[in-house]
Amino acid sequence: MTSAVAITDPFEVFTRDQLRRRTSVKWSVDEDALPLFIAEMDVQLAEPVQRAVHEAIGSGDSGYACSHHQLADAYAAFAKTQWGADVDVSGARANGGVLPAIVELLRVLTEPGATVIVTPPVYAPFYSFIKYSGRVTADAPLGTEGRFDFEVIEGAFTAAGPGSAMVIANPHNPTGIAHTRVELEQLAQLAALHGVTVISDEIHSPLVYDRPHVPYTTVDPRGFAVFSASKAFNLAGLPASLSIAGPDASAALASVDTALDKTLGLVAATAHLAALQHGGEWLASTMTALDVRRRRVAELVDQRLPGVGMRMPEATYLAWLDFSDTALADPAAVAHPGSMGSDLGVAGDLAKRCGVVLSSGEAFGEGGQNRARFNFGTRFDIIEEAVDRIAAEL
Amino acid sequence: MTSAVAITDPFEVFTRDQLRRRTSVKWSVDEDALPLFIAEMDVQLAEPVQRAVHEAIGSGDSGYACSHHQLADAYAAFAKTQWGADVDVSGARANGGVLPAIVELLRVLTEPGATVIVTPPVYAPFYSFIKYSGRVTADAPLGTEGRFDFEVIEGAFTAAGPGSAMVIANPHNPTGIAHTRVELEQLAQLAALHGVTVISDEIHSPLVYDRPHVPYTTVDPRGFAVFSASKAFNLAGLPASLSIAGPDASAALASVDTALDKTLGLVAATAHLAALQHGGEWLASTMTALDVRRRRVAELVDQRLPGVGMRMPEATYLAWLDFSDTALADPAAVAHPGSMGSDLGVAGDLAKRCGVVLSSGEAFGEGGQNRARFNFGTRFDIIEEAVDRIAAEL
Repeated sequence: MTSAVAITDPFEVFTRDQLRRRTSVKWSVDEDALPLFIAEMDVQLAEPVQRAVHEAIGSGDSGYACSHHQLADAYAAFAKTQWGADVDVSGARANGGVLPAIVELLRVLTEPGATVIVTPPVYAPFYSFIKYSGRVTADAPLGTEGRFDFEVIEGAFTAAGPGSAMVIANPHNPTGIAHTRVELEQLAQLAALHGVTVISDEIHSPLVYDRPHVPYTTVDPRGFAVFSASKAFNLAGLPASLSIAGPDASAALASVDTALDKTLGLVAATAHLAALQHGGEWLASTMTALDVRRRRVAELVDQRLPGVGMRMPEATYLAWLDFSDTALADPAAVAHPGSMGSDLGVAGDLAKRCGVVLSSGEAFGEGGQNRARFNFGTRFDIIEEAVDRIAAEL
Repeated sequence: MTSAVAITDPFEVFTRDQLRRRTSVKWSVDEDALPLFIAEMDVQLAEPVQRAVHEAIGSGDSGYACSHHQLADAYAAFAKTQWGADVDVSGARANGGVLPAIVELLRVLTEPGATVIVTPPVYAPFYSFIKYSGRVTADAPLGTEGRFDFEVIEGAFTAAGPGSAMVIANPHNPTGIAHTRVELEQLAQLAALHGVTVISDEIHSPLVYDRPHVPYTTVDPRGFAVFSASKAFNLAGLPASLSIAGPDASAALASVDTALDKTLGLVAATAHLAALQHGGEWLASTMTALDVRRRRVAELVDQRLPGVGMRMPEATYLAWLDFSDTALADPAAVAHPGSMGSDLGVAGDLAKRCGVVLSSGEAFGEGGQNRARFNFGTRFDIIEEAVDRIAAEL
């Protein structure tokens, strides 16, 4: 039984020493540190992905990418199989990273200086990339349960006015909330009423536990979604994404400059295609392994971290820890939206004191004060040691 | 002797059938067509590049890329070894593709609507990406020898005025001219005099025959260069580039938004690093193989394509063929700068008539009429058959 677990748990394949030899940002930390910050997983990649990349490189198939309707079709089939969702991908555009795709959508959908609403605490780079796009963020903070607060959102829509946009994380990062169909429908109705266009970042969508993910464009014909296999299949290093328009929004998507399409690298496209077409079994075993871990983290926090709050994530491999009621809390802590640091607030203290590197809650904006994001997509022994190191500082 | 050639000639490794199974743009043509258009090579990749990517994928090292000073240092060492050049890379920025990097430089260096001078016939996407950047192209056509025409350039600088920019291909695509140090120095002087900033696209720089490439920032302290290993090592499908500033231009480069850095994929960075650090031997054998091919193409054109003009390229694996004095010439042919098609003019005729797919000269702008670009980075038998098929149409 133990060996069966070892074989099917992709987080227990590599030793710490092997992980430390990685060159990615997650493993660029000091020798003794435990990196639980940036959202990369310590997994072995899906075998079909490995094979597809090896074959491409071995055959020299590393030239320019075609327009990749293939990627859109593979996503549609994946959405059907995984979530029972019928996504219209007829106008979909394949390109490089998710954030550049969102920037291009904002440039087409809004005027320079337009307001773009976000729901903090939220993925920190939304702030920096919206700024980079020449638009201005406005906050509609989540409610206390980490879910959309529609009164707050309606207030933000009213203040921003028609021609504004909203960028959501669906499912939400860092709270791990999977927005329900009812919530997304309510958002779509409000957005239509106020003339706001919603762009849904669905990079975490294959990582929803217990129930199907709801692709945003299936509830909002005016809306947009940007999907990537990179988060679930650990392919941040091979960036590819797919921009999808709701049925009434395809003209706007078609008007995105074709220059964008040229940011897609063929080898990344090959990897993502293999993941979507043949990665189902690997994804299932990874979700099983993550499900065990989220429960284990909740248990460990409960048992060993007195005063630390945690809500069980409905999606993602990220736990959102609340240190407000611990001695580590700093009453003067303020939000630093977009900073993307691991050196602020509680996370900064923990990194310095015990080498556990979490993402600073402050970087996610309002509501992130005295919080930290804990990436549990790793070995059990690393998770346990990290919790024990934190416990010693409380 | 024959087997020694077969072993060291990376263009003779893959059969036509193997090449046809590639999924890249070059091999997306019809079954019977011979693709000699887009600038990908039909090579086996360098063994160190293959190994580095295989190891990264095998160890799951596919997360986020670090800032990659490593890539800048590797480029500096490569420039020293290959060309004896001392390039200051202290402020260099690593990112995704070359064209997005040029767009970001234009956004920092010029105002919206500014004039950007190019030297047609020139790499067609310069036109579309400069348009995409919100700037306006102005032509300073090359002289009859395919080299810079400094009277024309000075006229364009005077018309454009201070605050304008210029984008050059160094070496030049499609004419295969390697600008000399004297030419680049003269350009730098003119640019300084007129307050124009020059951005040098050096993607073909490892592919100069017979003499060292001259990195532009070594002759123009106000200038910029964007380098990539992708053309020489056939890594278009793993896009990575390095933006380099001359000694007096580093502040401007530092002010490019850090969002740009996040477009670099780790696996692409790994491949480029391996190419620069360990690809020297492969590059030498590839250049030998290309040198034999450029001479063979010139000989075949001379022997079998009466009336077709060709100047021996000083760099690149691209021959620039002049069909003006053949029956295929169309007196009404006009430039279509930026179109990047293979369906215009002589190239369009040849593709339809005999399945030889060249790049249409018209796409490269003024001076491209009745020309076509012939990519000889392929098997000898494909080159010979292509020439024979063209000969039958003359």
